[in-house]
Amino acid sequence: MDVQIITIGDELLIGQVIDTNSAWMGQQLEKEGFRVVGKTAVGDVEKDILNAVNSAMQRARIVLVTGGIGPTKDDITKKTLCNYFDSGIHFSEEVYENIKLIFNRSGRLINELTRDQAMVPDKAVIIQNKAGTAPCTWFEQEGKILVSMPGVPYEMKWLMTNEIIPRLREKFLQDIYIKHQTTWVTGFGESDLAIKLTSFENELPPFIKLAYLPQPGIIRLRLSAYAEDPDLAEKSIAEQRKKLHDILDNHILTDEDKPLELQVADSLIIRGMTMGTAESCTGGRIASLITTHPGSSKTFVGSIVSYSNDVKKNILRVSEDDLNRFGAVSKPVVEQMVSGAIKVLNCDYAVATSGIAGPDGATPEKPVGTVWIAAASKEKVVSECYQFSNLRELNIMRASNMALLMLLKLINSK
Amino acid sequence: MDVQIITIGDELLIGQVIDTNSAWMGQQLEKEGFRVVGKTAVGDVEKDILNAVNSAMQRARIVLVTGGIGPTKDDITKKTLCNYFDSGIHFSEEVYENIKLIFNRSGRLINELTRDQAMVPDKAVIIQNKAGTAPCTWFEQEGKILVSMPGVPYEMKWLMTNEIIPRLREKFLQDIYIKHQTTWVTGFGESDLAIKLTSFENELPPFIKLAYLPQPGIIRLRLSAYAEDPDLAEKSIAEQRKKLHDILDNHILTDEDKPLELQVADSLIIRGMTMGTAESCTGGRIASLITTHPGSSKTFVGSIVSYSNDVKKNILRVSEDDLNRFGAVSKPVVEQMVSGAIKVLNCDYAVATSGIAGPDGATPEKPVGTVWIAAASKEKVVSECYQFSNLRELNIMRASNMALLMLLKLINSK
Repeated sequence: MDVQIITIGDELLIGQVIDTNSAWMGQQLEKEGFRVVGKTAVGDVEKDILNAVNSAMQRARIVLVTGGIGPTKDDITKKTLCNYFDSGIHFSEEVYENIKLIFNRSGRLINELTRDQAMVPDKAVIIQNKAGTAPCTWFEQEGKILVSMPGVPYEMKWLMTNEIIPRLREKFLQDIYIKHQTTWVTGFGESDLAIKLTSFENELPPFIKLAYLPQPGIIRLRLSAYAEDPDLAEKSIAEQRKKLHDILDNHILTDEDKPLELQVADSLIIRGMTMGTAESCTGGRIASLITTHPGSSKTFVGSIVSYSNDVKKNILRVSEDDLNRFGAVSKPVVEQMVSGAIKVLNCDYAVATSGIAGPDGATPEKPVGTVWIAAASKEKVVSECYQFSNLRELNIMRASNMALLMLLKLINSK
Repeated sequence: MDVQIITIGDELLIGQVIDTNSAWMGQQLEKEGFRVVGKTAVGDVEKDILNAVNSAMQRARIVLVTGGIGPTKDDITKKTLCNYFDSGIHFSEEVYENIKLIFNRSGRLINELTRDQAMVPDKAVIIQNKAGTAPCTWFEQEGKILVSMPGVPYEMKWLMTNEIIPRLREKFLQDIYIKHQTTWVTGFGESDLAIKLTSFENELPPFIKLAYLPQPGIIRLRLSAYAEDPDLAEKSIAEQRKKLHDILDNHILTDEDKPLELQVADSLIIRGMTMGTAESCTGGRIASLITTHPGSSKTFVGSIVSYSNDVKKNILRVSEDDLNRFGAVSKPVVEQMVSGAIKVLNCDYAVATSGIAGPDGATPEKPVGTVWIAAASKEKVVSECYQFSNLRELNIMRASNMALLMLLKLINSK
């Protein structure tokens, strides 16, 4: 069943806000067997919203709209949808009760703009938004469905999870079953891997697609089967996965598609081990990635973000001599950092990073993008020097990724 | 001059990758006086790409396309654009030279798929991509322009900055000048602020738009002027900004639209002061935010991410008695964390966080979303308890934001 997503808001077009909503929606919808065929972003402009809605309603059976339904004047989605569906508007006591509930909980007073959020289109089914004050509206017309939701991420997520997806699932029998399988491969460039997989790809059944999703040091290979028969989809994907393993063998890192930091954490949790980090150029990014996930306190004890050399010396006990002799971005320093982290944080494993993220701090011998990374257990220290790019953000991201990858390999080698 | 952005890739639709490219492009284009009127994302499907290109070419004078031009089989943008523009294809020695240069630099061998990236459309102007192997192609047809770029963020950014924007600027005289002014306001809910600004909004000249961009604890108010006369746009925005200041007075945090962590860092840099963080529930997020920005080492010395109580005790010197008596999420503990950070990191200012990010760890007295935050200078400690949401990611984000806000206010109060 095809879905088109429309996101509304000037802030999306001029890039003041990054649209993370539609990626999340895509993930959830695909998992449930819906197929996102496209996404459109438009500004808070009536003509543009109408155009987008019009072509989406022609293109897909289900249209999910987010944004533009806040209390303020720049938000015109509700009014515009009333025009599109030729609908009047009325005051909903039920919605107003929900608004009062939310305001009472935080002790705020309801003003007239907020009260107006209880004005709802006559032609829509109203779905209560328990996560916020703007209700969700569900229109049906000529067998097609359009749902308008708030753009606030947690409100949209609450509505999708608890209301929209269950209703869509109930409404539409799934005539196409979708199965994804993502395998993580390491040690290849994208095109080298593609050549290695040429005959594999050519022999894929027509209902299976292969996609390459490269990230630093890793390529995620995604097989997707689209079939009416779930058994066929499952069986074919299992077969192709086995073929991939036969071809790529020890280049396969995992068949689980979960973030690297979660793979590290889970590997440690099943071993009953703990970890910490000592971060210079990554500035806490690795710790932050790990602690984004629930349950990380089971394995993650903490981090020393040692941005200055003083912190490297005073807390991680890096030798002052070595700092002076080799510089902060060096093998001895990163290895002392990682060993220091294991000691002061009192954990089983650690990773450390020290590099020139840029744009400042480079020397002729150590250009921007030079990063030393070390991983260690209580018995063993490994380290390596990488030359990444000349872009700061990319260097931080790559260094974090490669550090996690190095640690994962070290843990799995035991 | 209207711009439509098209992003191509199945991975965008099923949410395996978050589209940060188009937000960045929107920012750059708006700054240069172009107007992004819409964005479309489609999968690697010929029919969908053709549809998107077709309606974009009708809608806007400039169409910028990213993605789908890698060396692998799933990437079909080049072939599809050749169909659309009815163009043949040929081998470009010049592009091949660039590919060889890039491969030689990293010591890799060129395979046939990579060599095929030197096949370019006859009807396009070829723009060399010095950041990668896939060239950029520039089509013109009936006064409209379509540019196809790689989806790899740093390649796209290199091309936009060095090639596309300068060429577009040269090609089109700007008939409309755009001026944005974003003012940060604190201490208001969105709708309360809207009511406060009702008459201000009603009195805005027709060529000025006002948008509300709420984030935890802050609302960014964006005024945008669209005028043929740059002086008029500048003058009107300055007038409206002054009006806003008169109305909102001490609720205005700043007129600079830069991330909170950068406002903190810049406030410290001009004072010649340093800072650090002691993070429990934010897990290094604050440190990571600050160190994303170039030059952060001028003010940021480091962080103790004290996820476990042992790290709080052993490194930050939080009293074991207080940890047992009040729990880690408490006023005494967060205040000892922040003072401990100033001492062990040897810095002038610090912030600390300790909370229940969720979903685990809650107690009846301390539900998920309870977060203690402290900010301190060497002379003064302030702290406050917040009750955020029941969503982990949101709690980490809000706690980081509120910590930075608390620190900024403390710095500015001196």
